[in-house]
Amino acid sequence: MNARTVTSLSNPTVKAVRALHLRKEREETGLFVAEGLKNVTEGIETGHAPRILMYGRDGADHPVLQKAIKATQGARGEVIEVTHDILAKVSRRDNPQAVVGVFQQRFTALAEIQPDIAPCWVALHRVRDPGNLGTIVRTADAAGCGGVILVGECCDPYSVEAVRATMGSIFAVPLVQASEAEFAAWRAGWPGSVVGTLLSADKDHRTAEYRKPALVLMGNEQSGLTPDMAALCDVNVKIPMRGRADSLNLSVATGIMIYAAAL
Amino acid sequence: MNARTVTSLSNPTVKAVRALHLRKEREETGLFVAEGLKNVTEGIETGHAPRILMYGRDGADHPVLQKAIKATQGARGEVIEVTHDILAKVSRRDNPQAVVGVFQQRFTALAEIQPDIAPCWVALHRVRDPGNLGTIVRTADAAGCGGVILVGECCDPYSVEAVRATMGSIFAVPLVQASEAEFAAWRAGWPGSVVGTLLSADKDHRTAEYRKPALVLMGNEQSGLTPDMAALCDVNVKIPMRGRADSLNLSVATGIMIYAAAL
Repeated sequence: MNARTVTSLSNPTVKAVRALHLRKEREETGLFVAEGLKNVTEGIETGHAPRILMYGRDGADHPVLQKAIKATQGARGEVIEVTHDILAKVSRRDNPQAVVGVFQQRFTALAEIQPDIAPCWVALHRVRDPGNLGTIVRTADAAGCGGVILVGECCDPYSVEAVRATMGSIFAVPLVQASEAEFAAWRAGWPGSVVGTLLSADKDHRTAEYRKPALVLMGNEQSGLTPDMAALCDVNVKIPMRGRADSLNLSVATGIMIYAAAL
Repeated sequence: MNARTVTSLSNPTVKAVRALHLRKEREETGLFVAEGLKNVTEGIETGHAPRILMYGRDGADHPVLQKAIKATQGARGEVIEVTHDILAKVSRRDNPQAVVGVFQQRFTALAEIQPDIAPCWVALHRVRDPGNLGTIVRTADAAGCGGVILVGECCDPYSVEAVRATMGSIFAVPLVQASEAEFAAWRAGWPGSVVGTLLSADKDHRTAEYRKPALVLMGNEQSGLTPDMAALCDVNVKIPMRGRADSLNLSVATGIMIYAAAL
């Protein structure tokens, strides 16, 4: 192993990685941070070599890390061994993961979507919570969805919090960004059912027709689907509410809808 | 309004509320903290008057808060107006909710459960993440489940993080605690299906028989159901995994199972 050992927080690579906590910095560089050996390995196995790989001395002998180091060096990425303190600062956690990778973001264009390659796709309108977004990406991966389309002003799928919640699925699920107007125009050509989830709908989510490929559209955490977005759907459905709770957590509701639509 | 105004962090009531961040303190006092006017009102409306009600000056004129103050005073609880700084310290947040209530915990005994009052019940074995636990309580409420049974060493449903994630459902859903041995003995008398979720199961979760009342049993975030717990079930099912992700988030998986079983 020929990695440099870095001990200073003022090292330029360390500073650059820490700056990726800022959305503006992520957007300007097109990079993001994935923590933990599992996530880094998931990235490498799906064809995303790290631009930067940082690891702590404790984990240095792990054979899987050795593989990740080779993959990074093979793609001319930078590999540095760092102190526990640096890992904690980069992760903003007292107990950081021993490995941190910096990867190139990838977005798929709306026009590149091939609807028929998957039984289900997910569109989220103005999702706000990165934990929800990351969890939904994980669920979309598990259910074999084609991708997740972020409509309008959404939180960043490449924030550290969102990437953490994906548990590695950030590398597996195509992500698309679209304005409301772009989505509305594109949706007109969708070959299957577009199904919106709306608390005020009459139809039970299990009785709707999910003509494949089904596109499940979810509103945001505070206010659900807007009337404009609901009107874009072939059908609006509700997940029955039988207790005092007036709504479900967004990632739970999306999971229920995906599994109703995808299978 | 005759509430005292408290400005000092060394005030004994403020200190007592802050101490409820510690599980040990919650267990010794049998109390917990619910933040926000919605949650506090949800508590009052379901027959749980606050022992202590704290609010910031900004929200003091809100008619719903006035109702909460009366309900607290009517039950001989303590009402105090506090500074923003105290609310921030109590909530451990820079932008705290303007109202904080302290309530009595309630657990239902295993022997008091009447299975037939609901189509579905949920049991969680060694759940570790308070956000997952709170989200599951919210989903159980939404789906009309009879209650949530916490089996073995679980995280505390009355932690601030768990209560936050319930979005008020902490007051609506009966909670039960049981050791593994108690659960195993009690389960023998269950009149419906006991369905365990297991990644290695062959049966698809949608093809299982959920004889009502169905009891859905979920393992923990790291390792799923243990063989001992899986063996207690009438049937083990899996939620199909069709992508690279090898599992779902626990609260998402539980939501999918609850809605498969309850409806």
